[in-house]
Amino acid sequence: MEGLRFDGREQEQIRKLRFTRNYISTCPGSVLVEMGKTRVLCTATVEDRVPPHVKGTGRGWVTAEYAMLPRSSAQRVVRERSTLKTGGRTHEIQRLIGRSLRAVTDLKALGEVSVLIDCDVIEADGGTRTASINGAFVALVDALEADGRWRGEKLPVKDWLAAVSCGIVAGMVVVDLAYAEDSIADVDMNMVMTGNGGIVELQGTAEGEPFTKEGYDRMIDIAEEAIEKIIREQKKVLGAELSGRVGTI
Amino acid sequence: MEGLRFDGREQEQIRKLRFTRNYISTCPGSVLVEMGKTRVLCTATVEDRVPPHVKGTGRGWVTAEYAMLPRSSAQRVVRERSTLKTGGRTHEIQRLIGRSLRAVTDLKALGEVSVLIDCDVIEADGGTRTASINGAFVALVDALEADGRWRGEKLPVKDWLAAVSCGIVAGMVVVDLAYAEDSIADVDMNMVMTGNGGIVELQGTAEGEPFTKEGYDRMIDIAEEAIEKIIREQKKVLGAELSGRVGTI
Amino acid sequence: MEGLRFDGREQEQIRKLRFTRNYISTCPGSVLVEMGKTRVLCTATVEDRVPPHVKGTGRGWVTAEYAMLPRSSAQRVVRERSTLKTGGRTHEIQRLIGRSLRAVTDLKALGEVSVLIDCDVIEADGGTRTASINGAFVALVDALEADGRWRGEKLPVKDWLAAVSCGIVAGMVVVDLAYAEDSIADVDMNMVMTGNGGIVELQGTAEGEPFTKEGYDRMIDIAEEAIEKIIREQKKVLGAELSGRVGTI
Amino acid sequence: MEGLRFDGREQEQIRKLRFTRNYISTCPGSVLVEMGKTRVLCTATVEDRVPPHVKGTGRGWVTAEYAMLPRSSAQRVVRERSTLKTGGRTHEIQRLIGRSLRAVTDLKALGEVSVLIDCDVIEADGGTRTASINGAFVALVDALEADGRWRGEKLPVKDWLAAVSCGIVAGMVVVDLAYAEDSIADVDMNMVMTGNGGIVELQGTAEGEPFTKEGYDRMIDIAEEAIEKIIREQKKVLGAELSGRVGTI
Amino acid sequence: MEGLRFDGREQEQIRKLRFTRNYISTCPGSVLVEMGKTRVLCTATVEDRVPPHVKGTGRGWVTAEYAMLPRSSAQRVVRERSTLKTGGRTHEIQRLIGRSLRAVTDLKALGEVSVLIDCDVIEADGGTRTASINGAFVALVDALEADGRWRGEKLPVKDWLAAVSCGIVAGMVVVDLAYAEDSIADVDMNMVMTGNGGIVELQGTAEGEPFTKEGYDRMIDIAEEAIEKIIREQKKVLGAELSGRVGTI
Amino acid sequence: MEGLRFDGREQEQIRKLRFTRNYISTCPGSVLVEMGKTRVLCTATVEDRVPPHVKGTGRGWVTAEYAMLPRSSAQRVVRERSTLKTGGRTHEIQRLIGRSLRAVTDLKALGEVSVLIDCDVIEADGGTRTASINGAFVALVDALEADGRWRGEKLPVKDWLAAVSCGIVAGMVVVDLAYAEDSIADVDMNMVMTGNGGIVELQGTAEGEPFTKEGYDRMIDIAEEAIEKIIREQKKVLGAELSGRVGTI
Repeated sequence: MEGLRFDGREQEQIRKLRFTRNYISTCPGSVLVEMGKTRVLCTATVEDRVPPHVKGTGRGWVTAEYAMLPRSSAQRVVRERSTLKTGGRTHEIQRLIGRSLRAVTDLKALGEVSVLIDCDVIEADGGTRTASINGAFVALVDALEADGRWRGEKLPVKDWLAAVSCGIVAGMVVVDLAYAEDSIADVDMNMVMTGNGGIVELQGTAEGEPFTKEGYDRMIDIAEEAIEKIIREQKKVLGAELSGRVGTI
Repeated sequence: MEGLRFDGREQEQIRKLRFTRNYISTCPGSVLVEMGKTRVLCTATVEDRVPPHVKGTGRGWVTAEYAMLPRSSAQRVVRERSTLKTGGRTHEIQRLIGRSLRAVTDLKALGEVSVLIDCDVIEADGGTRTASINGAFVALVDALEADGRWRGEKLPVKDWLAAVSCGIVAGMVVVDLAYAEDSIADVDMNMVMTGNGGIVELQGTAEGEPFTKEGYDRMIDIAEEAIEKIIREQKKVLGAELSGRVGTI
Repeated sequence: MEGLRFDGREQEQIRKLRFTRNYISTCPGSVLVEMGKTRVLCTATVEDRVPPHVKGTGRGWVTAEYAMLPRSSAQRVVRERSTLKTGGRTHEIQRLIGRSLRAVTDLKALGEVSVLIDCDVIEADGGTRTASINGAFVALVDALEADGRWRGEKLPVKDWLAAVSCGIVAGMVVVDLAYAEDSIADVDMNMVMTGNGGIVELQGTAEGEPFTKEGYDRMIDIAEEAIEKIIREQKKVLGAELSGRVGTI
Repeated sequence: MEGLRFDGREQEQIRKLRFTRNYISTCPGSVLVEMGKTRVLCTATVEDRVPPHVKGTGRGWVTAEYAMLPRSSAQRVVRERSTLKTGGRTHEIQRLIGRSLRAVTDLKALGEVSVLIDCDVIEADGGTRTASINGAFVALVDALEADGRWRGEKLPVKDWLAAVSCGIVAGMVVVDLAYAEDSIADVDMNMVMTGNGGIVELQGTAEGEPFTKEGYDRMIDIAEEAIEKIIREQKKVLGAELSGRVGTI
Repeated sequence: MEGLRFDGREQEQIRKLRFTRNYISTCPGSVLVEMGKTRVLCTATVEDRVPPHVKGTGRGWVTAEYAMLPRSSAQRVVRERSTLKTGGRTHEIQRLIGRSLRAVTDLKALGEVSVLIDCDVIEADGGTRTASINGAFVALVDALEADGRWRGEKLPVKDWLAAVSCGIVAGMVVVDLAYAEDSIADVDMNMVMTGNGGIVELQGTAEGEPFTKEGYDRMIDIAEEAIEKIIREQKKVLGAELSGRVGTI
Repeated sequence: MEGLRFDGREQEQIRKLRFTRNYISTCPGSVLVEMGKTRVLCTATVEDRVPPHVKGTGRGWVTAEYAMLPRSSAQRVVRERSTLKTGGRTHEIQRLIGRSLRAVTDLKALGEVSVLIDCDVIEADGGTRTASINGAFVALVDALEADGRWRGEKLPVKDWLAAVSCGIVAGMVVVDLAYAEDSIADVDMNMVMTGNGGIVELQGTAEGEPFTKEGYDRMIDIAEEAIEKIIREQKKVLGAELSGRVGTI
């Protein structure tokens, strides 16, 4: 089934994407990413210490924290400090962001250093986890550059990285779902890919009817195309010089 | 690349699978599931109350909790009550179990009732989340039958459900990874499917190298075959009469 | 002692002040307030329930929450959910914000309704608690107007409200301290006043030498003048019509 | 008053007792103990570190943790991680288990090593704390033997240890109460003794009527006899060689 | 072995005992109990609500909380709120106090009312849990009298209640151990008895060598005598009229 | 407006003030302070360790904890350990006590040592935070003297310190408010001053109507006079010799 989406987009069309670098004056790796109305503030902090399980290995680590500001959602989100618990959804998302960024970070070249990614959602209109990954990647590159350890050399980032959601809404396979679509989707899939087209993460959930292999194949294709576009935007905003120092060739 | 696995299994061969029903004398939906050395105690508890977000809808809910006993793993697992936190991995797993079982439960036919699934790992040798889903499904059927509300009728379970892990280990696509394989896998994927072959959940992560669409296709095929075998075992252990009351035809 | 300040300001000069209303599209009472580099997102949420101690009194309540985003400060701020504790400074600030706004809210006219103020600091360059009060007041007016209960009538807000910090830095009495001044101040005072010139809160602390009554008198004067300027800005950004519906004549 | 008990046992008769050693393949000190339907998984973990209060004394320590699996009881037990609190009963029991095992452990011979006992109740039909002590003792011996430090020598265990409950039910003094008896008992006593007949712990509580010294004397006698039987079973399951390396003569 | 104790007391001699009623002017059931240097503030609060498990039974409940002030002990005690945990020892003690008082309270005559006992240790020189029980009993009687429901009638208290510690110190059986004795005792026993000589609680622990039945017999005798003395003091401080309204004859 | 207060005091009259030193036999810096019915136990503990932010600076630190015993207030106060949270009011008060004492402590002369102040309220009849500061100052002097490091020399205390509340009650400016006054006050101010008349802390809150500069001036005057009286009492109870070793001339 084909047709126009509720906001007039084509099935394979992502929302307006914008990256604002240096969003916080005292934090060199701070990026505001906007995908349509979804806005996430992504920062990257480089620290000279690593978690116990990598100590002494000569390798680094990347970890992530994610939170929604109370009024980022139409219904006010209770602060997690009030509940004395970090919710399951939050854990799931911050683990996804951390794993995805580690997949393209050259942990050996990084050395015994950790990078802590913070993603704080200012406004949520669907796709906050994938927007977070897109913004966090840019913040990571900025923070590593600002750190000064790799001045003028290749940064310890092996490949480009971007993410997008796709799904089946009213029988139609679409990409980069807004909240209005997400809330009625039968299938919801998040995909994280590298600049070289490798799949890093792929998480599909049938909210309604279980989906078939064919549906899956169509979603993969549409997502792949969107991810290429997002990576082109990341390159543009980082500029040629810095972009040239990302990736292994 | 092809060849025998470390324990002599073929690539597409699952470990020895066993379900012990009525494992706890006072709990009708209590199943010990064993996949090789991995052992999980799965119980299902039917309660006459539902969470706030479904109250008044006439529909039911299924939720899950997962925990590892301290010595289920070679290195002692610290009890979560000691840390005052439920870990991210735990949250991720129990949300997966809950979503998967909800996908095959007829929540309308269930009525305003909730089923709480508990999965407690006695010994962990890889694949505890998929074993949990397999055992929890059998416990769910037993608990619903014992509840008495659907005596002699179709149970509010729309389809069969099973799960299996697959992955790429030393270049070889394999199914139902033991811990020795899991810890060195390049790609780790968990797949949950219904008796009708629909995909309910699909989560793939590249621990090492990003994977390709071809790798993905091979993993899907091998997992599908394994899930069919597991569902045959579930039907055998539940017996013809009870099995006949599962699924919508 | 007189002289220019580190950023060229006069002693009695506040930093550039800016209010951006409707900062979040789905939240009518959402204001970004900027005082120099200090940026705080203030939102107001109207809820049809009140805390136990006012239930049944026919009166409403106003309460506040305050938090700093992790990279709002040069040194990353650990999220409070990670420590399972809300820190003392946070409590102090959110109690101050709540008390201040209650002082100008007509709780009887509000009825059994509560307004929850959220102040989230995006960038902290000194004076976040006073900036929060200034932004929260504007958000409160917007949220009450959007609620619709007082359409075209006087809003349940008895007077205007603004806050500013003042202090003694290198022997000089100054207003609206930036972080560079705050960190070396001998005395730090926060003052909250109404449009009618009444003092709502006054908190002075000698970080170094105890201060005299004369020092205090000079600080009060300089703060009073600054507060008048801030209230003029609040009126300007809210516009004549809405401003006319605030205060008791 | 004399007579048969609800399950046909004599007053001084304990339930069927069974120890299964090496219950978990990767944990050498893992014992499933069964007393009638009560089943507890007891494991012992030897660690090369001690708590602060014994550090530097050249002595070791033994500590215990106890938990009930959610469906071990007819009414589902809420996981303690959910309540963010370890309940009073849990604390009481794990402190009892720890103290009891320390009483027969030669802490000097142990050296600066700690043994952590975990007791997880799979099914609870009364007497879970005494069953835990009985199983934990066997697990302790196995774990110390497996550790290898005392190969072929006396283990750092000074004496045998077992525990049993006794009580007054419907006016009758009985031993090893099942849940059906425990819930209606007037007096409930737990007794822990060594192989040499020394009393290690003795805790009596009048749930209904206060008890007399005579009632107490009868309970002591009946418990003493039961404990001798339990120790005979422990020796049998550990075998002659290992048993010969326990105790001081 | 016989002889004088470190503070000159005979083996069977308790320390100087003093009860100060109405210790807090706004709390009618507030008693400061002193046993030697051990001082505990005991209060009883009557509330018109009961915990869920007795709701609707027409019966009441008695519960207790116990805490040590930070400098009650020579080494400062960390506040439990700082650790986010109530320690095991605290739980054990407050459960003991609660059970003991329930044993002599006529819960049916009490009606659906609960009494909350608070025991806060001002100075700890051994025996704080037994002193707490002694003081709490007096506070309970005062609070029930002040409540007014049983004015001029029998109070819902079936019997008198007192507690004392005893132990074996340097081979000598002694009663009411001070801290200097407690810290070197081989055996430590706490005994709670009624005015009619019934045993309510009896908890003996061998800190060093396990103890024999003979040691136990001697400890019981010496404790019994001490408890009689304490109950005489309780009657004296409560006065003849109030004392006459306690107990079932 | 002038007149007698509810308890017959003049506007500028403080309640009966009493300090009992050495209140706990094992704690040299332990003072019970009484202001009318308000009673607070204040202790000071000297420790050879400092918090991270002063480590290595050669300077010391003073910190404070504050709590109310459950029945110190007419309505029972829930223990903070039960709520797993330290309340905002508690934080505010203990931060105030700590800052105030640091203002008169010579942190350099103290050396890398910390003093921990504990203030536990036994009975609360208004003014517990100011009473705490008054008692804590005496406890601080006693604890430093007992520590022995400054034997016969100037103690590391630069000036005397006392605190008092003042407010506007029924239009009348009064000092040292009792609970009956506090609960109906329009303005509530707490003031902390040194022996030399310097202002250390000044916190005024309009509970009802905002206050004017004139009201403030009158409150300052009346508080100043009261603080002088309190310091005279502190000197008297500490005695001439010890008093002579406080302050910098």
